[in-house]
Amino acid sequence: MSDIEIARKANKKPIQEIGDKLGIPSEHLLPFGHDKAKISEEFIKSLESKPNGHLVLVTAINPTPAGEGKTTTTVGLGDGLNAIGKKTAICIREASLGPNFGMKGGAAGGGQSQVVPMEDMNLHFTGDFHAITSAHNLLAAMLDNHIYWGNELEIDIRRIAYRRVMDMNDRALRQIVCNLGGVANGFPREAGFDITVASEVMAILCLAKDLRDLEKRLGDIIVGYRRDKSAVYARDIKADGAMAVLLQQAMQPNLVQTLENNPAFVHGGPFANIAHGCNSVVATTTALKLADYVVTEAGFGADLGAEKFFDIKCRKAGLKPEAVVLVATVRAMKMNGGVKKDDLGTENVDAVRNGCANLGQHLENLKKFGVPAVVGINHFVSDTDAEVQAIKDFVAEQGAEAVLCKHWAKGSEGIKDLANKVVELVEGGKADFKPLYPDDMPLLKKVETIAKEIYRADDIVADSSIRNQLKQWEEDGYGNLPVCMAKTQYSFTTDPTRRGAPRGHSLPIREVRLSAGAGFIVVICGEIMTMPGLPRKPSAENIRINEEGLIDGLF
Amino acid sequence: MSDIEIARKANKKPIQEIGDKLGIPSEHLLPFGHDKAKISEEFIKSLESKPNGHLVLVTAINPTPAGEGKTTTTVGLGDGLNAIGKKTAICIREASLGPNFGMKGGAAGGGQSQVVPMEDMNLHFTGDFHAITSAHNLLAAMLDNHIYWGNELEIDIRRIAYRRVMDMNDRALRQIVCNLGGVANGFPREAGFDITVASEVMAILCLAKDLRDLEKRLGDIIVGYRRDKSAVYARDIKADGAMAVLLQQAMQPNLVQTLENNPAFVHGGPFANIAHGCNSVVATTTALKLADYVVTEAGFGADLGAEKFFDIKCRKAGLKPEAVVLVATVRAMKMNGGVKKDDLGTENVDAVRNGCANLGQHLENLKKFGVPAVVGINHFVSDTDAEVQAIKDFVAEQGAEAVLCKHWAKGSEGIKDLANKVVELVEGGKADFKPLYPDDMPLLKKVETIAKEIYRADDIVADSSIRNQLKQWEEDGYGNLPVCMAKTQYSFTTDPTRRGAPRGHSLPIREVRLSAGAGFIVVICGEIMTMPGLPRKPSAENIRINEEGLIDGLF
Repeated sequence: MSDIEIARKANKKPIQEIGDKLGIPSEHLLPFGHDKAKISEEFIKSLESKPNGHLVLVTAINPTPAGEGKTTTTVGLGDGLNAIGKKTAICIREASLGPNFGMKGGAAGGGQSQVVPMEDMNLHFTGDFHAITSAHNLLAAMLDNHIYWGNELEIDIRRIAYRRVMDMNDRALRQIVCNLGGVANGFPREAGFDITVASEVMAILCLAKDLRDLEKRLGDIIVGYRRDKSAVYARDIKADGAMAVLLQQAMQPNLVQTLENNPAFVHGGPFANIAHGCNSVVATTTALKLADYVVTEAGFGADLGAEKFFDIKCRKAGLKPEAVVLVATVRAMKMNGGVKKDDLGTENVDAVRNGCANLGQHLENLKKFGVPAVVGINHFVSDTDAEVQAIKDFVAEQGAEAVLCKHWAKGSEGIKDLANKVVELVEGGKADFKPLYPDDMPLLKKVETIAKEIYRADDIVADSSIRNQLKQWEEDGYGNLPVCMAKTQYSFTTDPTRRGAPRGHSLPIREVRLSAGAGFIVVICGEIMTMPGLPRKPSAENIRINEEGLIDGLF
Repeated sequence: MSDIEIARKANKKPIQEIGDKLGIPSEHLLPFGHDKAKISEEFIKSLESKPNGHLVLVTAINPTPAGEGKTTTTVGLGDGLNAIGKKTAICIREASLGPNFGMKGGAAGGGQSQVVPMEDMNLHFTGDFHAITSAHNLLAAMLDNHIYWGNELEIDIRRIAYRRVMDMNDRALRQIVCNLGGVANGFPREAGFDITVASEVMAILCLAKDLRDLEKRLGDIIVGYRRDKSAVYARDIKADGAMAVLLQQAMQPNLVQTLENNPAFVHGGPFANIAHGCNSVVATTTALKLADYVVTEAGFGADLGAEKFFDIKCRKAGLKPEAVVLVATVRAMKMNGGVKKDDLGTENVDAVRNGCANLGQHLENLKKFGVPAVVGINHFVSDTDAEVQAIKDFVAEQGAEAVLCKHWAKGSEGIKDLANKVVELVEGGKADFKPLYPDDMPLLKKVETIAKEIYRADDIVADSSIRNQLKQWEEDGYGNLPVCMAKTQYSFTTDPTRRGAPRGHSLPIREVRLSAGAGFIVVICGEIMTMPGLPRKPSAENIRINEEGLIDGLF
């Protein structure tokens, strides 16, 4: 059965019953249909004095076309922990609507380890992304309106730093000239749209502690600069209050369920390149108050996702992760070991062994954050025992343990070993989380630290304009911010074809951007696309409601 | 107390109880929070064989700055009918989000005759407009994508007839050049955005009978023309199926409640100028299956709103309205009689009497549709008895009746007389609804018929390009469509300053547009703005969440 077939057969419980498992009274659970709900702000506030559960991160090796199953393992581990008697919730990101009309949409998880309802999660869900689009574009409209009515703030229209967004793959909007048509329509200028997940408002919603913090951060967004290069903020445009109103409901975390009827928080979905790629802080902190264990994940491989999870999200939200699961697959190890995708079906223990270099470097890196790690081998039916053993042996040589997981095929029953291992790590009390670099390290030095410690680059390459820009931001009071790396997810280097654990490379910085509201400096290394296009034959062409009322073509 | 204060004090019942009044089982009521719900498609289908209730239209004189209270009377009459023992539901439109950030948002109704929850209805509500925005813009993205990948359909990029939409007042987007930035971003062309309520997709959603009809109509949208001027449809772009998927949930009518806990359908909100300005057909037909009486309204005054309700909505959906309430106020009559807004507080029976010419013409017009009418005088505290009597006398001279209504101050208790009168009209069985013109009348003749019969123009003025265009559409098979008039709502003429019942005018046609999916020809007479701008000091500047968690500045 395909993921969607399994999802449609799910024996879903009313969302009130799922909330009940976490002790959420039904008046504080705002339903969206019968299988989705938001948790009220008031209830979340009432939890403040409660102790926190244990936070577990699921991360992965560098992704390959073979797939690694990070979300599947997050869902599976959540179900597994529940199955061994630990009250557990998972926290994952929401999906973006637009890309589903280009390529087929995806499950949240796979096989027997999925979150449902799958269709809703790939479409409008509870409207959070639409609210973010509205809030983002309100500021853009108010900005152009300010200029139209006299530009009292003296914004230089050549230096506007704020684009519009749409949750759509629409290359036609990447670069536009707006305000055309004469006096009544404003001053013509260059502009453009990003996809909603790339919005700074999205990153802000995901990092804000509560509504007040949200409003404050929205006010901190830099919309442009004057001729003297001084910044103009959303606060100066007086858009922050109305943006917060538009986001009030979107700030409430969404509750859904796994196929095994365990609670799943699905909330927020910032880009994992120009933003930090984790679900919302509010979802994670709320889950920690309501469950004994919280399993969450971060975008891309551990070099990007885990690093940002630790250095941005955990640092800023005061989270203390206590264990990490590093997901690997035999197939991905083979690809890292040089095997082509078409040859993955053939047993190749040597290739697995060679590919483990990538796994090894991630494992080594994770130690630098002070959180104990275990490797979860996400089992595929084609994997041979010898191949699995090769990974286990390699990991054992690194002083860690790799556990085989069959949750894709068997649900919680297939992942109890990993669940027990995670409990052992947590209860062992060895975790002593610390970010990779201190707040007060100079910005360029922060980038260099990540490049050398995580990517194992020899050095970084940044021209004087970039160095000067970073210095300027330090003088402007932004020196304490963490850096948010935007590079390819396929390699430790900036070259997506270099798998394994490459050495002898350097990290070239192409551009730096200040996300003053989100609270990080984006460091762009290589091409980053913030508005995708549709392919020659978009999947939308085959999407329709069939005779049975089901959606065809979306998956 | 202000409307919002009254609304916040409302003693709301759980939406399941409201659905229960109409016999909707809770599994078919998809909740959005505790006070809003959508009614499932499956349940709506199950109602097909049930008899229909009685349909009552609330319309009004030409609006004046004094306000006439059409929605307030719709809500009040619904409560009044319920109070006299008739199982009644009301059907009104959803509000557009964007404009609330320019001018203050509005209540649905006013005083003691309101629909709640007011904040939600002015913000994201159940996400319908966001879904319409997504569906609309998906087609736009697929259109540009088709051209990008080779333009197999040979669309002339100078003749693209489909714009993008956003639910925002954003004049900067009225006219743009898109696809800039080189080969990877497409072929530069002129484009622009309308506000979402002006989308043809909105009109389609409001006129479609069900999901299949919706999909068919979406496919009929004309996106542009080839060099030989042949039309290219959304169906050719293969966007119709995916658009219907995005709109599947938005097609389900929304249920909320009045302050007196009576059911209110709030669904769809097409522009009342370039579209027909009524709530969705699905909401009205569903309400008619579930209630004995259904009270609905149409946008603007009766010259535009009622005419389109009858000639477009009722004609196409096979609805048979049985009574009309024409709302008038003493203050609006005074303004029609020449009194300035600042002088409305002073008694002026003569001015009331003079202004009644406007009322009289609407009353006369309504008879042409074969539906019996009663005038509802929406009482203001400053109205004097003599002024009210002047309206009553005038209406009696026309052979009709005017009933004083105090629902604004007293709720249902204040409008029982009107409710009884409406029941009398309906039970009298005098209604014999017929549209103003037959389907097979030539298009220009349809416009002329409305101009002469309703507006009392001497003639219409249309240059040869407009006449030729209409003939071309007749040859193309669109001759049977109704016409959708877009003119000022403030006058029977195209001059907004000419109040009362002007004579000796003609109707100049500036432009005609084909909405092939919605199924009407738009006839534009005068300036029509499809993308508003924000004012110098947008209301958004004062909108925020206050210390008590309530929204300030929105109302």
